[in-house]
Amino acid sequence: MPRNALYAQSGGVTAVINASAQGVIEAARAAPDRIGKLFAARDGIVGVLAEELVDTGAESVETVAALRHTPGGAFGSCRYKLGSLEKHRAHYERLIEVFRAHDIGIFFYNGGGDSADTCLKVGRISQQLGYPLQAIHIPKTMDNDLPHTDCCPGFGSVAKYTAVSIREAGVDLASMARTSTQVFILEVMGRHAGWTAAAGGLAAESVGDAPQLILFPEVAFDEARFLAAVAHNVRHYGHCAMVVSEGLRTAGGEFLAEAGGRDAFGHAQLGGVAPLLADKIKAALRCKVHYAQSDYLMRSARHVASKVDLDQAYAVGRAAVEIAAQGRGGVMVSIVRTADQPYAWSLAEVALTEVANVERKMPSEFIREDGFHITAACRKYLLPLIEGEEPPPFRNGLPQFARLKLQAVPARTGKTFDWQSGT
Amino acid sequence: MPRNALYAQSGGVTAVINASAQGVIEAARAAPDRIGKLFAARDGIVGVLAEELVDTGAESVETVAALRHTPGGAFGSCRYKLGSLEKHRAHYERLIEVFRAHDIGIFFYNGGGDSADTCLKVGRISQQLGYPLQAIHIPKTMDNDLPHTDCCPGFGSVAKYTAVSIREAGVDLASMARTSTQVFILEVMGRHAGWTAAAGGLAAESVGDAPQLILFPEVAFDEARFLAAVAHNVRHYGHCAMVVSEGLRTAGGEFLAEAGGRDAFGHAQLGGVAPLLADKIKAALRCKVHYAQSDYLMRSARHVASKVDLDQAYAVGRAAVEIAAQGRGGVMVSIVRTADQPYAWSLAEVALTEVANVERKMPSEFIREDGFHITAACRKYLLPLIEGEEPPPFRNGLPQFARLKLQAVPARTGKTFDWQSGT
Repeated sequence: MPRNALYAQSGGVTAVINASAQGVIEAARAAPDRIGKLFAARDGIVGVLAEELVDTGAESVETVAALRHTPGGAFGSCRYKLGSLEKHRAHYERLIEVFRAHDIGIFFYNGGGDSADTCLKVGRISQQLGYPLQAIHIPKTMDNDLPHTDCCPGFGSVAKYTAVSIREAGVDLASMARTSTQVFILEVMGRHAGWTAAAGGLAAESVGDAPQLILFPEVAFDEARFLAAVAHNVRHYGHCAMVVSEGLRTAGGEFLAEAGGRDAFGHAQLGGVAPLLADKIKAALRCKVHYAQSDYLMRSARHVASKVDLDQAYAVGRAAVEIAAQGRGGVMVSIVRTADQPYAWSLAEVALTEVANVERKMPSEFIREDGFHITAACRKYLLPLIEGEEPPPFRNGLPQFARLKLQAVPARTGKTFDWQSGT
Repeated sequence: MPRNALYAQSGGVTAVINASAQGVIEAARAAPDRIGKLFAARDGIVGVLAEELVDTGAESVETVAALRHTPGGAFGSCRYKLGSLEKHRAHYERLIEVFRAHDIGIFFYNGGGDSADTCLKVGRISQQLGYPLQAIHIPKTMDNDLPHTDCCPGFGSVAKYTAVSIREAGVDLASMARTSTQVFILEVMGRHAGWTAAAGGLAAESVGDAPQLILFPEVAFDEARFLAAVAHNVRHYGHCAMVVSEGLRTAGGEFLAEAGGRDAFGHAQLGGVAPLLADKIKAALRCKVHYAQSDYLMRSARHVASKVDLDQAYAVGRAAVEIAAQGRGGVMVSIVRTADQPYAWSLAEVALTEVANVERKMPSEFIREDGFHITAACRKYLLPLIEGEEPPPFRNGLPQFARLKLQAVPARTGKTFDWQSGT
C-alpha cells in the first residue's frame, strides 16, 4: 500500500495558489500506486498541528478542476512561522505525530520563504525521529522573492493586475487632467521588494504612457526629486500617473508610511504611503490628486490572472507529485526560463537547503538610473510573466468559484494540541 | 447640405463612455444625408469654449470600433459646470459663436446631471439668439443618479467591478482569517448615493458569502451598531468582508472621512473612510484589518466591464444620432426596462426639462431593514446591469486601447476665449 500524502497552503494567498492544489490533487489521483490518500490541512500547518485534515478524495473531478479558477486558499492558509527545531520542538514532534497517525509519508507545502524553511525543518525532524517523510515545497508568493526559480507562482497575476490597472487608470486620468485630477497614485503591496511596482512599468509601452513614475522600496525616497519629477510630468503631459510600493522608505531606511507622523492621539498615521504622497503633491504643486490602494484586490484578482502564471502554478503542483512518486524529497520545485521571446520554461528541483532563508532581491539593473522607472532588462524579464488570459467562468455577471466539501478526516492521535502555546 | 454635429464628453469618465462615442460616430457616418461633419470637442465643453475641435472623420473605422474597448474619455472630459444664463452669458454666447463658425446644428453632450443642465441651457440660449440648434443629452454617470432612465451607462461596469472585487477579496480573506486578517474593507466611490456600495451586495449569493456588511451613505453611521455587526460576523464566520461607500455620514450628516479628525498640523485626516473604520475595528475588536480603496480603478476597469452596460452605452450614442436625424432636440436618451429576467430594455427620450437638476436617489426599499445589506428588490434591479463580459483585446498581456489621431479643426471664430475668466 502506498503511503498517504498531505497538502497544505501557507502564507498570503494568491489568485493562482489553488491551481497548484489542483495540480497536486489531479496528479496524485493519477498515481494511485505511488500515492495513497491525499489529505489537505485546514489553514496550513496550523491545521496539521490541530489535526484538522480533510480528505481531498471527497471532492468531485469538477470541483478539483474549478480550483483552477478560484482565488484565495481553498483549504485555508496561515501566517504562522515555526522557529528553530529547539525552540519549537513540541510543534515539530506534534507534526510527526499527526503524520504517523495518518500514515502520511509525503508532505507538500505550498508557500513562500517561511514555508520553505518549515518544509526543510520538518524533513530534518523526521530524520531525527526516524520517521520516513518526503517533504516537498511548492513555490507560491506574490512577492517573487524565492531564490533559484525564474519566478514565483502568484507573482505573474499580481504583476498583470498592476499593469492593467495603471494602464486603465492612466487613460482615465489623462482625460480629466485639464480641469480636474492631474496626478494619480496606485499604491501596491510588496513591503520589501519592488517587483510588483516594477510590473506596473510594463503598461508604459510608448513615451508618455502611464505610469510616468514608479517608486520602488529599493530607492530611498527623496522628496524634492520626487516632486520635481511629478511637476515635470504634469508640465510635459498634463498629468502624472504613478505606481508606488507600500514599502517606500526614507534614506534612513524607515518605512515612509510609518515615518509620516502621528495624529493628535499619538496613533501612527493611517492609510499607507499613497495619501502621504498625495498630501505632499497637493501642497507643493497645488493640483488635484487621486489615489487607489488595491491591497487584497490585487492578489485575489483571478478575473484578470496571467495564463502563464496559472500554467506554472498548476505545473509546479503536478511536478511535486512526480517528485514524490519517484521517492525524493527535501526539494522545492523551481521554474527554469529557457527562452524569453517567446517565453519557454521547464521545471527543475532545488534542494531546500539552498532555498530556505534566502531572499531574492530585485536586481539593481532593473531600475532605471534616475530611480523612477524600469529598464529594458526588467521589461524583458517581466513581460512573459503576465502573458495570456484565462478568465473564470461567469454566471449572473460574476466569476464562479469552487465550493469544496472539505470533508473532515476523523482524528486519530487521540490528543489535542494548542498550536499557540505548543501544549 | 446637412449641418455639422459636435460631440463632447463631460464629468467623471467611465469604462464605457467611449462606447457611446463609438455609437455616435458610427451612426453619424451612416447618415451622411442628415448629419454633416461630426466634430468632437477636446476636454468637453471647455474645448468648445476654447474652439479646440477635432474632426472625427479622420479616425479610421478600426479606431472608432476600438473605442468600444477603451476606458477613459477618448476626446477628454471636463469638470466644469456652467451656471445660469445670466451669470455665464458670455460663455453661452461663445458656445453659439463657435457653433455658428463651424455650422454646428447638433450638439451631443455625453455626461451626467450637470451636463444635462448645460445641454438644456445651451438649447435655450440658441433659441434666444435665434440660432437653430438641436441639443441632445447622452446619459453617462457611474453615480447612476440621472432620473427617468432605468440606469446610467457607466454604472453597470462599476457595479460589476465592485461585486467581482469583493467576491474575490472575500475568499482571500476567508482563507487567512484563522491566523491573520479577519476584516476586509473595500471603499468605493459614490459620495451621495449608495448605488455602487449596493452593487457589492450582488456577490453575496449564499449565506455567509462576502460581503457580509455594506455601509451606505443613506444610513447614518452608528459606531456601536457597526462594531457589533462586525464582531458578530467575525464570531459567526471567522471573518467579515464589507463594502463601504466613501460618502458614509454621521447622524449629523457630516462625511465620516472629514469628521475623522485632524492631524497634528491641523490637516483633515487623509485617506478616506476605510482607514478610519479599520482603526475603530482594530481598537475595539483587536483583530487584523485590511482595506482597499479602488478609486479610479473601479470606473476605468474596462477589462471587467459589463456587457449590458457596454451595449447600452453604445445604443444611447446611436439613438442620439437618430433623434438628431429626425430633427428633434432638447432631450436625453433614456433606457426603459421592459423585463427583469431575462433583462430586456428599449430606448426612449425624455425632455431635458425633466432631467436637469433632478437627482435620482436609491429607494429606501433597496436597503435591508438593519441598514447593513441590500434587499431582494435591490438585487432584482441591479443584477441585470452587471451581466455579460466582453473583455478588450489583449496583447503582451495587456488590454489594447484606441489611439486617436485627434486631428485639430482649424479655428474659424478668429477670437480667443478664456473659459476661466469668461473673456
